[in-house]
Amino acid sequence: MKLGMIGLGKMGYNLVLNLLGHGHEIMVSDINPERGAELAKHGAIPVATIEELVAGLQRPRIVWIMVPAGPVVEGVIDTLASLLDEGDIIIEGGNSHYKESIARGERLGALGIHFFDAGTSGGTEGAEHGACFMIGGNREIFTEIEPLFRDLAVDQGYLYAGNNGSGHFLKMIHNGIEYGMMQSIAEGFELLEKSSFDFNYEDVARVWSSGSVIRGWLMELTQNAFSKDPKLSGIKGVMQSSGEGKWTVETALELEASTPIIALSLLMRYRSMEENTFHGKVVAALRNEFGGHAIVPEN
Amino acid sequence: MKLGMIGLGKMGYNLVLNLLGHGHEIMVSDINPERGAELAKHGAIPVATIEELVAGLQRPRIVWIMVPAGPVVEGVIDTLASLLDEGDIIIEGGNSHYKESIARGERLGALGIHFFDAGTSGGTEGAEHGACFMIGGNREIFTEIEPLFRDLAVDQGYLYAGNNGSGHFLKMIHNGIEYGMMQSIAEGFELLEKSSFDFNYEDVARVWSSGSVIRGWLMELTQNAFSKDPKLSGIKGVMQSSGEGKWTVETALELEASTPIIALSLLMRYRSMEENTFHGKVVAALRNEFGGHAIVPEN
Repeated sequence: MKLGMIGLGKMGYNLVLNLLGHGHEIMVSDINPERGAELAKHGAIPVATIEELVAGLQRPRIVWIMVPAGPVVEGVIDTLASLLDEGDIIIEGGNSHYKESIARGERLGALGIHFFDAGTSGGTEGAEHGACFMIGGNREIFTEIEPLFRDLAVDQGYLYAGNNGSGHFLKMIHNGIEYGMMQSIAEGFELLEKSSFDFNYEDVARVWSSGSVIRGWLMELTQNAFSKDPKLSGIKGVMQSSGEGKWTVETALELEASTPIIALSLLMRYRSMEENTFHGKVVAALRNEFGGHAIVPEN
Repeated sequence: MKLGMIGLGKMGYNLVLNLLGHGHEIMVSDINPERGAELAKHGAIPVATIEELVAGLQRPRIVWIMVPAGPVVEGVIDTLASLLDEGDIIIEGGNSHYKESIARGERLGALGIHFFDAGTSGGTEGAEHGACFMIGGNREIFTEIEPLFRDLAVDQGYLYAGNNGSGHFLKMIHNGIEYGMMQSIAEGFELLEKSSFDFNYEDVARVWSSGSVIRGWLMELTQNAFSKDPKLSGIKGVMQSSGEGKWTVETALELEASTPIIALSLLMRYRSMEENTFHGKVVAALRNEFGGHAIVPEN
């Protein structure tokens, strides 16, 4: 099939490599023209602007967007909305909030443009060699783009999830689960590190990756990390987050759903962003007030 | 190799099948003689008593114990201690507390009996077709029994972890991680169930098992569960526990290690054991006291 890819960051770039490997014809565009030039070596057709990209495709056009969520994706969709025709298709593969995807589906649908929100998982490795997709949008039109997902995904690795928003909703929840799983694994190694045993963590992660109940890709990545740095001595324990965990917890509040592990995993990330906390000062002050317990003075 | 297996429950039984499939000669014993009779059909040699089992092995004897942790394993070890000779080997594959395994290693070591604590993971399926083992004990003697683990485990699925206790310690921490991972997965589906989308959970678990970041055996088991009962309508949300999670949290307290996700996952299991809680009554009463908020009366 012929399609356009807008956004050639780590994920978009690798998805293009994956699509080219399956014989698709891809026009590519990125704010950094070097990315398209690189992909041209692999057979992609780089263009400078979204206008050129749209002009180079035949109707019904298929345009895949893989740019950062928020204003960037909104700007690209605005531009595409003014250039595309009735019957054209937009696949938005980034980490947008599912409510935005519902709104975009309605807005573009009013113009006759078919919108799909495609939550994408599997990391950059998956993007290139076989990823996982959760897709929301019109069920019948989905069959037109299904061959793309069949090629890009691992076996069983794509799901038509329902109407617009369902794809990004599933991806958001996936990431919420990921927060909890990662913190669980991490706390296990915290206990190994504080114990009096002398474990080789790479070996431990390897054996836990091999036949155990907790085996999975995250444990394999844990093994990789320890193989590069046996005690992670080059990494500070600062756990950043990029929004999907927060959205999951906001959703839990909205749905009044009891999901303490996912919520606390997010809060532990916030805790890790500060060396010192104000709540710590308050508790220390109160212990001092009622019991005369020593405080650690601030320099 | 020739060895004895004491305890033919789900795990022991399947380990024997696995060992027989690799050409080992196994004498088996269980309080329920039917289990040994069943295994005799597969080539095992059933005996009625531990005495007979020990008498039927040549020195250095290898005896694998796969019985419930606590008094049962203690009783079997007491019996073996009185029957075995210097240089004989005991492998204890159950879920004993690692401190008990350290003590048993010392006690048996004083008699010249080599003791190994072998944490076992992978479920009954793994026991039969390839499991995961974390083994503590004497490093040099371990090489004598290593062929057994090589046959029983999946590729890379066994680890000599260090001195006595290290095997069961790793297995305990593994189970603590498992508590957090399971609760994380479960809370994700809680959010799907409370959302306004209409997902097929088997499909969701399948796509998340296929190329996603959170793929792994637990997600595959989630898929299996939903394939049998799409909304788990036949299962009450009561989450029992069998002790290793509690030991992990006790260990966290002993080590003063910050592991809130594992701890809270355990507490959520306790919460699930009660339909009504006393803390719920107290909070409801207090809201009523200060703000006149309605209570739900107890029948």
